[in-house]
Amino acid sequence: MSVTAAQGFLAAGVVAGLKSTGRPDVALVVNRGRRKAVAAVFTSNRAKAHPVLWSQQVVSDGIADAVVLNSGGANCFTGPFGFQTTHATAETVADALGISATDVVVCSTGLIGVGDQIFRDKVLGGATAAAAELDDDGGLAAATAIMTTDTKPKQAVVAGDGWVVGGMAKGAGMLAPGLATMLVVLTTDADLPSEVLDSSLREATRVTFDRLDSDGCMSTNDTVVLLASGESDVVPDQAAFQAAVTELCADLAEQLQADAEGAAHDIRIEVVGAVSDVEAVEVGRSIARNNLFKAAVFGNDPNWGRVLAAIGTTSAEFDPYDVDVTMNGVRVCHAGAPDQPSDAVDLTPRAVHVLVDLKVGDAEATILTNDLTHDYVHENSAYSS
Amino acid sequence: MSVTAAQGFLAAGVVAGLKSTGRPDVALVVNRGRRKAVAAVFTSNRAKAHPVLWSQQVVSDGIADAVVLNSGGANCFTGPFGFQTTHATAETVADALGISATDVVVCSTGLIGVGDQIFRDKVLGGATAAAAELDDDGGLAAATAIMTTDTKPKQAVVAGDGWVVGGMAKGAGMLAPGLATMLVVLTTDADLPSEVLDSSLREATRVTFDRLDSDGCMSTNDTVVLLASGESDVVPDQAAFQAAVTELCADLAEQLQADAEGAAHDIRIEVVGAVSDVEAVEVGRSIARNNLFKAAVFGNDPNWGRVLAAIGTTSAEFDPYDVDVTMNGVRVCHAGAPDQPSDAVDLTPRAVHVLVDLKVGDAEATILTNDLTHDYVHENSAYSS
Repeated sequence: MSVTAAQGFLAAGVVAGLKSTGRPDVALVVNRGRRKAVAAVFTSNRAKAHPVLWSQQVVSDGIADAVVLNSGGANCFTGPFGFQTTHATAETVADALGISATDVVVCSTGLIGVGDQIFRDKVLGGATAAAAELDDDGGLAAATAIMTTDTKPKQAVVAGDGWVVGGMAKGAGMLAPGLATMLVVLTTDADLPSEVLDSSLREATRVTFDRLDSDGCMSTNDTVVLLASGESDVVPDQAAFQAAVTELCADLAEQLQADAEGAAHDIRIEVVGAVSDVEAVEVGRSIARNNLFKAAVFGNDPNWGRVLAAIGTTSAEFDPYDVDVTMNGVRVCHAGAPDQPSDAVDLTPRAVHVLVDLKVGDAEATILTNDLTHDYVHENSAYSS
Repeated sequence: MSVTAAQGFLAAGVVAGLKSTGRPDVALVVNRGRRKAVAAVFTSNRAKAHPVLWSQQVVSDGIADAVVLNSGGANCFTGPFGFQTTHATAETVADALGISATDVVVCSTGLIGVGDQIFRDKVLGGATAAAAELDDDGGLAAATAIMTTDTKPKQAVVAGDGWVVGGMAKGAGMLAPGLATMLVVLTTDADLPSEVLDSSLREATRVTFDRLDSDGCMSTNDTVVLLASGESDVVPDQAAFQAAVTELCADLAEQLQADAEGAAHDIRIEVVGAVSDVEAVEVGRSIARNNLFKAAVFGNDPNWGRVLAAIGTTSAEFDPYDVDVTMNGVRVCHAGAPDQPSDAVDLTPRAVHVLVDLKVGDAEATILTNDLTHDYVHENSAYSS
């Protein structure tokens, strides 16, 4: 149950030979409903991959029929040939489905710089095969085909009053602000225009995927797409719809965090007492990106000094000598001095909660991250070999 | 030969019992010359340790007689008691030397949150002992006493025309922009006022220590102090003096990089063709802080895609599809597409050179960093235990 939970959607996942493991590597999601509304959010990285440059154009009119996705190669920095590959992929899907190539969103993930003729041939073959295997129960197959170093497919569904919104996600590496090597496809049978999809999606990603910062690195290929078929014949209340999309994105974001490359801890950094949301996010992100803090968590060491040192690098309003830090329920720092003994903190569970009270306002934000582990170094030092 | 290379300076390093290993842990450098000029640069971290807050006041009048330094505890976030410890340390040195406490710079390094009565007693005992052991050949003893996870003392000397400038440094962890857990003491017998010391030191650190970014983390305790005794009776040309201080700082910065915690590679990121120095530094720093890139270098993998992805997160002017990346002499990316095969790049030497040509201007900058290794994770997950 994921992208095919909503009425009007078909999906497939096939083996195209892009992955040396022989696992599925091309997915297709098609909207066969009476409405073809789309909204999307892309990486804020200025070095954008060809599929992102293509798909930004596709969604600009608010209409899309299909999303084709491949793992096994990011098709990024592959020269003009790479852009032509993206274009050809959309054409192949369009021909198979009898639609226009300009209504086909393309997403790719994998190694940057991979995108030669062999890559193209396999992607096009996969796109053709996927179109032939479309099924209204194909959600899991599609979610499986977009996995890279993910250890499990990621799916979620939220039911509204007579409508549903479901989705799939991949991404276990470069999770970061402004999205990460994260590909997410969401579908709904709610009867809504692209403008409503767009505002709902932006607000949802702002407080979910944008606050997931596994390793501070930002991908060239990140894409989150929301398609609406209208097949439920229900026009939901806009607030209810946005809440459902946010809940769905939060669920998928937590699944991404739980499956981040090499992670041994899922760290929830809750910043309260900030002057503004923006400053709470800045503080949380600074802690989430501090390698010394992340390595300490890996070692089950409640090293609150590294939390304060990270806060000090931000421009957020705070008094270093009036900050409280609580780790897994134990207040280890009060007013810039040691409080409860660090020995009282148990960091052996996978879930770690860091609560920072800046005491200068009422705003708050939560950032999700992971620890810095030997497995992270190992996976990322050997990824392309 | 380091802080005692210049005429007029004495130094000592003693065992105060702060380190569980029993190694020397308190150092003292004293200016006995006819001039007592001082300039200093401190961490830009807004969470500053007590010794930094104290020393900022000490140097504000351009006069200082001595610098006392301890390893084994940062005396940061240790409450009002911690500030009193810093004050008492300066008083102890002042009493022993017959000078004013307000002319004693204090530096501390080690774990944040450590600074209880036992810590204070040991630091004060060490300060008294160091004052009794001052020697005009004490440079190495002092350089040894400030080591934390450093594997070797770091010293350098640059000779001018009738004057010298020498120095010592410690710092193997949180090396980062705006300085790091880096304590540096420089001494000269040149006859210069504090204003000239200050401008020379700021320009030197801007292009040396400020461009050393081992792990992106910024310390609460960083301090670089330059003392001048005037004992050579030579007033150097200001440009020659600044060049010597810069050469000295560059030498010490490279020693810090070479001894960074757990590092297996010393990476020199040279950004050319930028619109401005500021943008060249921003680009270099972004690459230097990209964990995926740093892990790839550890794995001897010339993953230039991660270099481009890191550049894309900056605000610097560039065209992602007109950037060249050369690694250890092999141009692996040209105009946003693969160029020479990655196999041609040999990353097995410790020294790695990454050359990025943005092709939009004439400005350039070089950032020094290290790779992300298993040993880095190990050392920083076990540091406080």
